Amino acid sequence: MSIRIGILGYGNLGRGVECAIRQNPDMELRAVFTRRDPESVTILTDTAKVCHADDAKSWTKELDVLILCGGSATDLPVQTPEYAKLFNVVDSFDTHARIPEHFATVDAAAKASGKTAIISVGWDPGMFSLNRMYANAILPEGADYTFWGRGVSQGHSDAVRRIPGVKDAKQYTIPVEAALASVRAGENPELTTREKHTRECFVVLEEGADAARIEEEIKTMPNYFADYDTTVHFISEEEMKRDHSEIPHGGFVLRSGVTGWEKEHHHLIEYRLKLDSNPEFTSSVIVAYARAAYRLSTEGAYGCKTVFDIAPAYLSSKSGEELRAMML
Amino acid sequence: MSIRIGILGYGNLGRGVECAIRQNPDMELRAVFTRRDPESVTILTDTAKVCHADDAKSWTKELDVLILCGGSATDLPVQTPEYAKLFNVVDSFDTHARIPEHFATVDAAAKASGKTAIISVGWDPGMFSLNRMYANAILPEGADYTFWGRGVSQGHSDAVRRIPGVKDAKQYTIPVEAALASVRAGENPELTTREKHTRECFVVLEEGADAARIEEEIKTMPNYFADYDTTVHFISEEEMKRDHSEIPHGGFVLRSGVTGWEKEHHHLIEYRLKLDSNPEFTSSVIVAYARAAYRLSTEGAYGCKTVFDIAPAYLSSKSGEELRAMML
Repeated sequence: MSIRIGILGYGNLGRGVECAIRQNPDMELRAVFTRRDPESVTILTDTAKVCHADDAKSWTKELDVLILCGGSATDLPVQTPEYAKLFNVVDSFDTHARIPEHFATVDAAAKASGKTAIISVGWDPGMFSLNRMYANAILPEGADYTFWGRGVSQGHSDAVRRIPGVKDAKQYTIPVEAALASVRAGENPELTTREKHTRECFVVLEEGADAARIEEEIKTMPNYFADYDTTVHFISEEEMKRDHSEIPHGGFVLRSGVTGWEKEHHHLIEYRLKLDSNPEFTSSVIVAYARAAYRLSTEGAYGCKTVFDIAPAYLSSKSGEELRAMML
Repeated sequence: MSIRIGILGYGNLGRGVECAIRQNPDMELRAVFTRRDPESVTILTDTAKVCHADDAKSWTKELDVLILCGGSATDLPVQTPEYAKLFNVVDSFDTHARIPEHFATVDAAAKASGKTAIISVGWDPGMFSLNRMYANAILPEGADYTFWGRGVSQGHSDAVRRIPGVKDAKQYTIPVEAALASVRAGENPELTTREKHTRECFVVLEEGADAARIEEEIKTMPNYFADYDTTVHFISEEEMKRDHSEIPHGGFVLRSGVTGWEKEHHHLIEYRLKLDSNPEFTSSVIVAYARAAYRLSTEGAYGCKTVFDIAPAYLSSKSGEELRAMML
């Protein structure tokens, strides 16, 4: 029998989850829940229903896991504890600083209801965190480095779009090759913000807007751009649509450490992601953890978990015997 | 209280484990067991004892985990099930094809005795397997690639040393950059053995040996070299000692996969290790899993496990709260 999945929230992430479920034959999408008028939402999966979010509670017996695809700022802090009262849930809560607090409220809800909840699933937090943690456990003496990109930062793109005179904008975060090379060479550099990443903006201007003023405003924007070397390109609406409609991302997690009685040997552990579609990759990670959530719930492992708490084998559709024979 | 560790077998791997324990303040080396005369073995840790392997059974109350540092060919198939009757154990059994069989015998022994055993720990098998498994669970549609090196292959070095006229030899396995680049570019190439790795040999000749004959013998050796492009360098004993006394290794595990309703987006997951000392890195992984073995045993999780069965948090000396706050 398939693992029956529901999706709450049908934006880029929800659609990504829908696509990922199709690639996992042991899983089945049963319903998409939306806060919009369900009639106005068209999904890709013929066999699944579109329902209003308010109706989710009547689906408790029809779903094994509900995947929460809302935003971290206002949706998930409310939704994850709320729905963990009714369903096994997985979310991609990504406000790093507030994870402990989110964990606590979700854990209390899930333990009270006898459900399994997995939070902060994706790649950052998620696979990046996991690789950082493994690498730290293996090489306790060393330094961690994380580089993001080349990829689209939604927050930075939004910040540029808020400047008067800007019609549309897309911002790419780019790791500095020289910094990466220094880390890989075991030089353990201390890197400033400017030395780690550059930022590249593609901007469509409103009719008659002052390009020089806007470029200056971007480059000096505190927090977002002032501490970086930023390049600004002004392009047409057509070019924006043609060249910048995808949402690529990725990055690098490195640990540079030492072993030996006199710490005489150096080691480098590097994990890299190069993603054509940030939301679809994030969704693919979430769907693998939905499998884990379902399995853990059948074992009575209730409460809130993160990627750190879940044995890798739970993510795979293969049995322990198959994994040992084929992948070990 | 520290986790009390014993080591069985004091070669490169045993010494590596000893060094790694020193980097983990929550662990303590209590004893090294050897099949040699204990008087003849000098270890680095002042506070640990050197004992004969036959005396290990009198240490069952003194050790939390016994780390087995023997070889996979003849030592571990016997030792791991035998010592799992007395101790929680970790080994680095690396004969991939025989893992299922080894798992079964160790599992039976550990379950009968109420001990936790973790087998095939290291980087290959170990961290490479783990990354392959995670990447397959995330991207179910895609292709796996593993490249080894640049690093010393013990088996290939031994094969060269067995040729008459060869006094000493070291063989390096080297990944082909063009093949790596093609995988990274998402081209999903089908690669022959020759296209993936080259081999480089450094050879010290016996007095009067025929260099041309030996070079030919190496390059045409079935299984070991015939299917590869091999370079042979003849060097002096001094050069061998000066330039080739370390045991570096490493490699790459890549998964190239697709997502999207029409499989329109490509993704690359890459895990890379660059290791100055193969045995010391392997040892560092083993010591992290020894921590997991101890913790699992205190929870009553008996029997044989592999890296697939162990939640990442068990490897870390940090608490769940610390990990969520610092690493997620």
